[in-house]
Amino acid sequence: MSDTDAPADATSYPVDARNRVKRRHDRGFYDHETVHRLLDAAALCHVAYVVDGQPYCTPTLFWREGTRLYWHGSSASRMLRNLAEGEPACLTVTHFDSIVLARCGFNHSADYRSVMAFGQARLVSDLEEKRRALVMMVDRFFPGRTAGLRASTEQEIKATAVIVMEIERAAAKIRAKGVADDEEDYALPIYAERLPLRTVIGAPEPCPRLRPGVARAPDLAAYREGRSLEDALAEAHAEAYR
Amino acid sequence: MSDTDAPADATSYPVDARNRVKRRHDRGFYDHETVHRLLDAAALCHVAYVVDGQPYCTPTLFWREGTRLYWHGSSASRMLRNLAEGEPACLTVTHFDSIVLARCGFNHSADYRSVMAFGQARLVSDLEEKRRALVMMVDRFFPGRTAGLRASTEQEIKATAVIVMEIERAAAKIRAKGVADDEEDYALPIYAERLPLRTVIGAPEPCPRLRPGVARAPDLAAYREGRSLEDALAEAHAEAYR
Repeated sequence: MSDTDAPADATSYPVDARNRVKRRHDRGFYDHETVHRLLDAAALCHVAYVVDGQPYCTPTLFWREGTRLYWHGSSASRMLRNLAEGEPACLTVTHFDSIVLARCGFNHSADYRSVMAFGQARLVSDLEEKRRALVMMVDRFFPGRTAGLRASTEQEIKATAVIVMEIERAAAKIRAKGVADDEEDYALPIYAERLPLRTVIGAPEPCPRLRPGVARAPDLAAYREGRSLEDALAEAHAEAYR
Repeated sequence: MSDTDAPADATSYPVDARNRVKRRHDRGFYDHETVHRLLDAAALCHVAYVVDGQPYCTPTLFWREGTRLYWHGSSASRMLRNLAEGEPACLTVTHFDSIVLARCGFNHSADYRSVMAFGQARLVSDLEEKRRALVMMVDRFFPGRTAGLRASTEQEIKATAVIVMEIERAAAKIRAKGVADDEEDYALPIYAERLPLRTVIGAPEPCPRLRPGVARAPDLAAYREGRSLEDALAEAHAEAYR
């Protein structure tokens, strides 16, 4: 495939030099389904942006709506001042699935599923778009929750900056093969294993200052002790945007 | 504190405009102990770097040695070609500890412990430094393991690029307070909770092609089913560098 842009279609992100998976290109996926599935199973991302030539890598909560990604922060933050005009950014999500112990140093590895998404990040300035985003910032994780909350004040809405980035390019990269040694090394008397990892939900800790009779709503049941966070997040996203 | 550089001392990283925690500055820490503790409890980081004005955010395994951070990748990777000369980078580690459900949208939050480290990333070109780094790339996670592995070939050493970055600036940022609503909102009949998260180790999956009689070494016992990954990583780092 050449380095010229591949045309976008309804089901895949276009590919160019920015997002093409070069190293281990067999691990690269560009279709919406794969990219969106990995994004929607996450709450935390890392965003890279540049200020005066200095790169920054900032962790933040985010969510996807269609082919747009949203995240937020205080209006005072370094990143947002810079991104207000529309600045190139790269938002990355990584699911860390295992550490792989091989029979030689070179084949030690990790299983993972990641997405790198590229676009121009800009501040949401339209008030209606911002109000809607502030609802989904909660409801994407806990569908319908905003309706039961104390309403946001004008001051709170003003103090929360919302960033949006239309995904122009994206690539998912997946390694899911565990131990993969050189064929001749399997004969060696060396121990090798896949050490699986999982981010799980613990026992919910109700606020100690709950009013008498206020109980956990049944619609939070997706977030139950011992469940994989990514399963709960994917389910909530599907519910919020169905 | 002014925006001029604070002098470095033996126990803290200097502070300037790059790493000063501006938003919620009460959450910022610059001392080696806090910064290193959070780094050493992680295997996965995200590195931000810039190519032709475009920021990239790349997930990778990494480790700390003193005030240096090391990570690796294929010699062919996009990042490494760019960083070979010494390029500004930002390496970030995030421990995602909880999602916080509050009584209004604005106070929904997350507990987390993160480190952003800044410096000039460069390719390790000295062969002895590279050999040592390739040992610690494994032994930092599994102390002493390299001694029992099939030795690396010259070709493997050549094919593995190792990046090093002296930490010039770093900031840890910690939120660990769970639900924190506006005082008057505690009177409302709204449910609020802290939803704790933990990355745990699953049951180790031995390679199905192990030679007869090859068993899991006792020194892998730190990585046991159900344990927090960060505890195992911190313990291994302390053992590897004691």
